[in-house]
Amino acid sequence: MAIKTPFRIALIGAGRIGKVHAMNIHHHPESVVQYVVDPFGEAAETLAATVGATVAEPETVFADDSVDAIVICSATPTHSDLIERGLLSGKAVFCEKPIDLSIERVNAVLQKTAECTSPFLLGFNRRFDPAAAAMRERVVAGDIGNVELVTVISKDPEPPPVEYIRESGGLFRDMTIHDIDMARFMLGEEPSSVSATASALTSEAIAAENDVDTACLTLQCASGKIAVITNSRRASFGYDQRIEVHGSLGSLRTDNVPATTLVLERAEGVRREPPMHFFIERYADAYRLEWQHFIDVLNGECSPSATGVDGQRALVIADAAYESLNSGARVTIPA
Amino acid sequence: MAIKTPFRIALIGAGRIGKVHAMNIHHHPESVVQYVVDPFGEAAETLAATVGATVAEPETVFADDSVDAIVICSATPTHSDLIERGLLSGKAVFCEKPIDLSIERVNAVLQKTAECTSPFLLGFNRRFDPAAAAMRERVVAGDIGNVELVTVISKDPEPPPVEYIRESGGLFRDMTIHDIDMARFMLGEEPSSVSATASALTSEAIAAENDVDTACLTLQCASGKIAVITNSRRASFGYDQRIEVHGSLGSLRTDNVPATTLVLERAEGVRREPPMHFFIERYADAYRLEWQHFIDVLNGECSPSATGVDGQRALVIADAAYESLNSGARVTIPA
Amino acid sequence: MAIKTPFRIALIGAGRIGKVHAMNIHHHPESVVQYVVDPFGEAAETLAATVGATVAEPETVFADDSVDAIVICSATPTHSDLIERGLLSGKAVFCEKPIDLSIERVNAVLQKTAECTSPFLLGFNRRFDPAAAAMRERVVAGDIGNVELVTVISKDPEPPPVEYIRESGGLFRDMTIHDIDMARFMLGEEPSSVSATASALTSEAIAAENDVDTACLTLQCASGKIAVITNSRRASFGYDQRIEVHGSLGSLRTDNVPATTLVLERAEGVRREPPMHFFIERYADAYRLEWQHFIDVLNGECSPSATGVDGQRALVIADAAYESLNSGARVTIPA
Amino acid sequence: MAIKTPFRIALIGAGRIGKVHAMNIHHHPESVVQYVVDPFGEAAETLAATVGATVAEPETVFADDSVDAIVICSATPTHSDLIERGLLSGKAVFCEKPIDLSIERVNAVLQKTAECTSPFLLGFNRRFDPAAAAMRERVVAGDIGNVELVTVISKDPEPPPVEYIRESGGLFRDMTIHDIDMARFMLGEEPSSVSATASALTSEAIAAENDVDTACLTLQCASGKIAVITNSRRASFGYDQRIEVHGSLGSLRTDNVPATTLVLERAEGVRREPPMHFFIERYADAYRLEWQHFIDVLNGECSPSATGVDGQRALVIADAAYESLNSGARVTIPA
Repeated sequence: MAIKTPFRIALIGAGRIGKVHAMNIHHHPESVVQYVVDPFGEAAETLAATVGATVAEPETVFADDSVDAIVICSATPTHSDLIERGLLSGKAVFCEKPIDLSIERVNAVLQKTAECTSPFLLGFNRRFDPAAAAMRERVVAGDIGNVELVTVISKDPEPPPVEYIRESGGLFRDMTIHDIDMARFMLGEEPSSVSATASALTSEAIAAENDVDTACLTLQCASGKIAVITNSRRASFGYDQRIEVHGSLGSLRTDNVPATTLVLERAEGVRREPPMHFFIERYADAYRLEWQHFIDVLNGECSPSATGVDGQRALVIADAAYESLNSGARVTIPA
Repeated sequence: MAIKTPFRIALIGAGRIGKVHAMNIHHHPESVVQYVVDPFGEAAETLAATVGATVAEPETVFADDSVDAIVICSATPTHSDLIERGLLSGKAVFCEKPIDLSIERVNAVLQKTAECTSPFLLGFNRRFDPAAAAMRERVVAGDIGNVELVTVISKDPEPPPVEYIRESGGLFRDMTIHDIDMARFMLGEEPSSVSATASALTSEAIAAENDVDTACLTLQCASGKIAVITNSRRASFGYDQRIEVHGSLGSLRTDNVPATTLVLERAEGVRREPPMHFFIERYADAYRLEWQHFIDVLNGECSPSATGVDGQRALVIADAAYESLNSGARVTIPA
Repeated sequence: MAIKTPFRIALIGAGRIGKVHAMNIHHHPESVVQYVVDPFGEAAETLAATVGATVAEPETVFADDSVDAIVICSATPTHSDLIERGLLSGKAVFCEKPIDLSIERVNAVLQKTAECTSPFLLGFNRRFDPAAAAMRERVVAGDIGNVELVTVISKDPEPPPVEYIRESGGLFRDMTIHDIDMARFMLGEEPSSVSATASALTSEAIAAENDVDTACLTLQCASGKIAVITNSRRASFGYDQRIEVHGSLGSLRTDNVPATTLVLERAEGVRREPPMHFFIERYADAYRLEWQHFIDVLNGECSPSATGVDGQRALVIADAAYESLNSGARVTIPA
Repeated sequence: MAIKTPFRIALIGAGRIGKVHAMNIHHHPESVVQYVVDPFGEAAETLAATVGATVAEPETVFADDSVDAIVICSATPTHSDLIERGLLSGKAVFCEKPIDLSIERVNAVLQKTAECTSPFLLGFNRRFDPAAAAMRERVVAGDIGNVELVTVISKDPEPPPVEYIRESGGLFRDMTIHDIDMARFMLGEEPSSVSATASALTSEAIAAENDVDTACLTLQCASGKIAVITNSRRASFGYDQRIEVHGSLGSLRTDNVPATTLVLERAEGVRREPPMHFFIERYADAYRLEWQHFIDVLNGECSPSATGVDGQRALVIADAAYESLNSGARVTIPA
């Protein structure tokens, strides 16, 4: 049996999520990390050494025809340029969300790369969570009949630093956008309007930035289907990530995942372990399966689960949610 | 030990919920069903025979000074008059919700009975559900810190007949009103605005009545606390009744209650029993504890947990929710 | 509809379990407590007042032809005589387990009452626990195929006083006997041998009485089916009552029942409520359904679920378990 | 930062479990698979290609001083020789259980290698299951007080082929031995006697081999602590792997692990996913953490969790269990 040459990957961004992807690429039999790019030399050096890659400048990466794909894990403001350069140079691109915080910029990227034929996968990692993926499969299989009500519960363990908040685009564009994608993934129909309610309750710093940290978005589709998203930036017990889909024949629910099933029973009550603390642990399997999906895409076996259009739609909805939050009115989501 | 004379109760309405209360009154050592009143003679006769009561006309009941309290389980349009007659005749009153479907009528009842000193308990039965009561206790005890987000999930197993729908006042005044009361119970602060989203998805008959069956209400308080209510008239698997309260230090959740804990594990999966089918089974304990509470009220040991004002506030919110549903805007709840 | 005259019941023993049965008899529409018998006059007076009964001596009860059935909740040494007198006087008898601690005496009772035609129900209450009853129904329905391995886990919240231990007949005859009955109930075949392992671990007082408090019994049937019973007299978190039945096509499990479903999630873990503390709470439904079963028996609608023979078989097995404990060998259970 | 040279590992046996270890070694930053040894050339070639190793004969491996450790995943009859050759050649050894099916041979291995200073880890993989490890930590921390009763439930999804059964040493030496190790791990004290009950229920082939497939072992320690192991070779719903430890202050329980938390609620019941099917999936994390432990051992950071003596003790107990099964008597476990 001839062993296929593995795909050669250039990783841009050697931070927390960059390391996760680097290890998944490195451990996959069909991919190798060829280059690591990061403005912080030391992080790049360390990560490159771990996975046997070369530290490089972006120019080297885009000029190297042997690079099959680039994986973009750098700071948000760099995403759109890198996506364009990657796709226009004929490489496949896997980019962490978002494409950009500005819908105009996102639209420009989509327009500019419309003719590109190499695949583009946007990193909506939760689509690859085994529970969410199994839920979607059952929805599509009709196990619960017609979808009527989707509920996405999403709470982070603690608010990010205020510096992060300031550059984040706000709760809806930074955090809720994942939940909007999940709602779209389960609804099977584009939402046509959105209504938003939100408050700043967890810290004065967030209020001082005119941002919110506790919110409820209600999406409605033309057919009447409803999706409800509830968010908080602070759940003392860990990362609260649950989805429910209610349909005409039944309901589907996913629950939080504790580190182990261990139960301690004592006079004062029955104690289970809290949910895994945050996304790196909670979605470790999702990131691994996301990479497997990208390999399948590179092998031409399927098309990307989440594309530029998915990023665009989620941002359009987040923008409309801000409009609703400001006006107090239900807002029609632009087509 | 001298045995106290039990409270003499007149039960008005011998239908499904009337029977539930009749048995709880009958089984309680401190109460007896003295009279049963019902326009349908046969139902009254049967129930009266079961609990050793006399069938009577309303006039007899209100004229009998030995009657300590009346329990109103008759049709909604009769509630307000009976409450007034009961309280004005100096009897304690326990009335199933609602006081009336019209806020003007409710206001009139409250005004007319403002000077009455006998106690009035409105039947928001879920306050007495052991799980909800324990949740509220922990909220009050500060176990989760400041309340930030309350979620009430409430789905009926199947839609009522269209004749019922027609007289019901609509989803928000008929069904959601219980969830509004739960939200108020857990928030510890009056909501100041409401936003509603709703659809008719479960049957064409409901749509034909211009009613809705699938809904999300978002309540917000002046302090920023949010409550989210999701409703459906149809959950194929049974009565879906869950509450979550998220606070600065943690979360509380209640879950559905299956008939038994039995689990069947076979190759095709792990099967548990569905939630109890509807309110008669699910809230059997709540009805029993509600009656114990009313006995405590009659004994002067506490004041009613849910009063006319609670009924009034819930209806004001339901009315505001309809206004939001019609206008698409967040609506300020009248004080 | 003619209302049937309710069955007239004489309750013998006004202690803890006597009160439970008294209230179930009193609340059932087809039964009344006619007499309460107890050597402790005050307990009898109080209970009789609560249920509208007369305090009487045993002679009065057995001589009164209007008494349909006697319910025996008195001290164990009185059971066998009362059963005999009840059945021989033509009354139906419901007796709390055991018939007697001596198998010779049990055999004598069965022999002496062999010709009696009035029904005898032995109070193996767990057969009426809704979860155990549903489990048994599914076993009989073949949902798990052939039964292969039955596991009964049974732990009391705390050891009884040493005075109780001294008169109890020992762990196997006092506590394990319930689990032996459950095992028989689920096996669907008589066990043919037993092996016992036991220790005294929870208190020195139990060891000083030559009794044990922590044990494992292994029963085996001629067909090879195995049942395993594990016991402890002390579970700090409450009454641990679980059953598993493993078969060729699947498994069935019941779990402990907490007071409510309330979950508290905080940084230190997820806390649920402990199991209900002891049998009075845990088996409240079972006692109520057991009484309904006895009413059905009195109405001729079914034969008693647990009879004198069931009590006899369980005691024979407990005795054999002691023989195994003493000899260290697997012991053949006498037919 | 200087990057340490990774440990060079020779893997012997390229079958199912060999592949699991090969990938864990390959993915660990501190280890590389240097050699793959397997009599079946093709399996060795494929696996070696995947991890960048060389296919070699045993002689090459033992003669190569650059090999730090050997990992033995070959057929059971080869274990003891390979362990001896590995340890005597100064290499660290990680061997899948068992050392041998004959206690004489095991004793000989231990004696022959008694002077060897390189570490030996026996592959009792379940010690590294995160739930079991967390359970053991809490037991040691005293969270449940004194251990009184350990329960190990262990059922395979389906019986192995009869050819496997024939060479397996029988249920107790092949399968129960893992559970015996778990019991020893949790008891914190050597069991002093054992009583065994067993049947052949799942297939006639197993009975024809004079083996059993359904069993209960009861271990007792000098202090009175009891451990109960229940086994079946066939659980239609998947791999049933649960442990309970009951102590003076509380209990600990682990539960089965489904592939995801997904719940499907329909009219016919609430359906969860079955437990993971078998050990490769269920203990994937355990195998990974076991390898991390071996790396820690190689780095001198800790001593092996499970040693040759643990293998020896477990086999002595399994042998005594057979003696009990044959004689019907409780058997004292040789020191």
